[in-house]
Amino acid sequence: MVYQEQYSRYVGMVEETMEKILPQTEAVCPKDGGVIPQYLCETMRYSLLAGGKRVRPVLLLAACEMLGGELEQAKVPAAALEMIHTYSLIHDDLPGMDDDDYRRGRPTNHKVYGVGHAILAGDGLLNFAYESLLGNAAAYPDNLQGHVLAAKAIANRAGVTGMIAGQSLDLLSEHMEPDADRLAYIHTHKTADLLTAPLLAAAYLAGADEEAIERLKRFGWCVGIAFQIDDDLLDVEGDAALLGKQTGMDAQRGKMTWPALFGIEAAKERSARLWDEAEESISAFGERAWFMREFARQLRARKS
Amino acid sequence: MVYQEQYSRYVGMVEETMEKILPQTEAVCPKDGGVIPQYLCETMRYSLLAGGKRVRPVLLLAACEMLGGELEQAKVPAAALEMIHTYSLIHDDLPGMDDDDYRRGRPTNHKVYGVGHAILAGDGLLNFAYESLLGNAAAYPDNLQGHVLAAKAIANRAGVTGMIAGQSLDLLSEHMEPDADRLAYIHTHKTADLLTAPLLAAAYLAGADEEAIERLKRFGWCVGIAFQIDDDLLDVEGDAALLGKQTGMDAQRGKMTWPALFGIEAAKERSARLWDEAEESISAFGERAWFMREFARQLRARKS
Repeated sequence: MVYQEQYSRYVGMVEETMEKILPQTEAVCPKDGGVIPQYLCETMRYSLLAGGKRVRPVLLLAACEMLGGELEQAKVPAAALEMIHTYSLIHDDLPGMDDDDYRRGRPTNHKVYGVGHAILAGDGLLNFAYESLLGNAAAYPDNLQGHVLAAKAIANRAGVTGMIAGQSLDLLSEHMEPDADRLAYIHTHKTADLLTAPLLAAAYLAGADEEAIERLKRFGWCVGIAFQIDDDLLDVEGDAALLGKQTGMDAQRGKMTWPALFGIEAAKERSARLWDEAEESISAFGERAWFMREFARQLRARKS
Repeated sequence: MVYQEQYSRYVGMVEETMEKILPQTEAVCPKDGGVIPQYLCETMRYSLLAGGKRVRPVLLLAACEMLGGELEQAKVPAAALEMIHTYSLIHDDLPGMDDDDYRRGRPTNHKVYGVGHAILAGDGLLNFAYESLLGNAAAYPDNLQGHVLAAKAIANRAGVTGMIAGQSLDLLSEHMEPDADRLAYIHTHKTADLLTAPLLAAAYLAGADEEAIERLKRFGWCVGIAFQIDDDLLDVEGDAALLGKQTGMDAQRGKMTWPALFGIEAAKERSARLWDEAEESISAFGERAWFMREFARQLRARKS
């Protein structure tokens, strides 16, 4: 109960911050550079303010509070991370990528606003994430280096050696032989990197030491990989398992998954080990890690 | 002659910096996060290293040198700006946007690497621009605030109240009545903002005062709008003028242009006034502005 209240408190901060910093629109053709064309504004808001669990910004705020950092300084970085996550979903859904018509029961961005504006809205959210991070950094001259290192950590994990590298290999994997190294690479970058990013950002904002940073990195990676394996297990138990498919590829989408490559039992064992390791990796933070611990337990217990 | 040598020197710095900071690839599936998947790497390099005049980074380096800033600190920001310009071209060429098959005589990025990877390469270059700016900022702790303000100025001009706002309205303008305000908005944001960005970035890196910043802003805006009007005039003198079209829309692409909206003579007059004003706006810098002055004169004299 206390956990749910705390979770809602963090989500409230993120939603409020996003509403506050997103540029407003006043007309189809704004005369002033400080506002934003109406259609572009709507396109961005449609996907950004569509609800969702706000997992990444919640992790950033929780880690910041655990480490004794100032929550006020972490709100914009948390919102920026959600913008990066949202842009990646908009672009992932496009024709030429996954070409999806629905996401969470609503039509995808390009189905509503057209491919051109879905591309621009994604670009806009990505750029605005950095615009926000840099504006926020400039607003805290006493902690300027912390903010620059936090933004840099986010950029590294979101970029071409991070999430985008994972998306690239994921897109190519439909034409590749299933391979354990390749699968680990995709999971690490496409999923885990954007869960590690908020933890690193929080650590830099709060001025945490190297040991804390290493622990948080480990936690983020374990949670990310375990989450991805569970995701694939939930899919498999829904369909492919019934058909007895063991080809190393996910039945529906022709993509590699852990259960398909190693079997369902091995996947379950690996997931369990990773969840244990996630909890272990933050045990040194003691009671202060209560929210992060509960966060991992809740994710581990999910059934959908 | 001296001008051409100086221009080549700046271009050389940009090319060298881009080669140096772009992540390398070693295998189809790199095991380490520090390298980048081969196909993604090739896709990014195809468009980024395709030559071109490097106008924006040259402006940044020239303004930095004029203002007495350290060129060494400005090389990465200059390269980052070229990455932002390149990503915008890759995404502009996509189906759903302008849907172009060729750019500067070569097949467009998505024609060679597919739509999915063209989207990812664009996202990758945009994100890597900020990754580079932030990494470079962290490398100069003594000038951290200058670097943060420079990166912020680039983000503002490239983003949803800058270049992306211009792209959005440009995309929508095919379905709109020609309108002088709307046209001014598109030119200011789609073209001029990314020419003002390097001048502002240079000013912050060099610690220039408010007066210098205002002059450079004016120079960038005048050059951007005049350049765009000339571009449209060169197009019109090639085709639509012969047909006597005066519909307010560009004949070929159904887009609004200055010559089409106000007539060829009025467009020529406006362009001439803007080029004069550009030169006037930097006259206070005296001899130190020689390169910038010659830069504007060369652009003004171009015939294609």
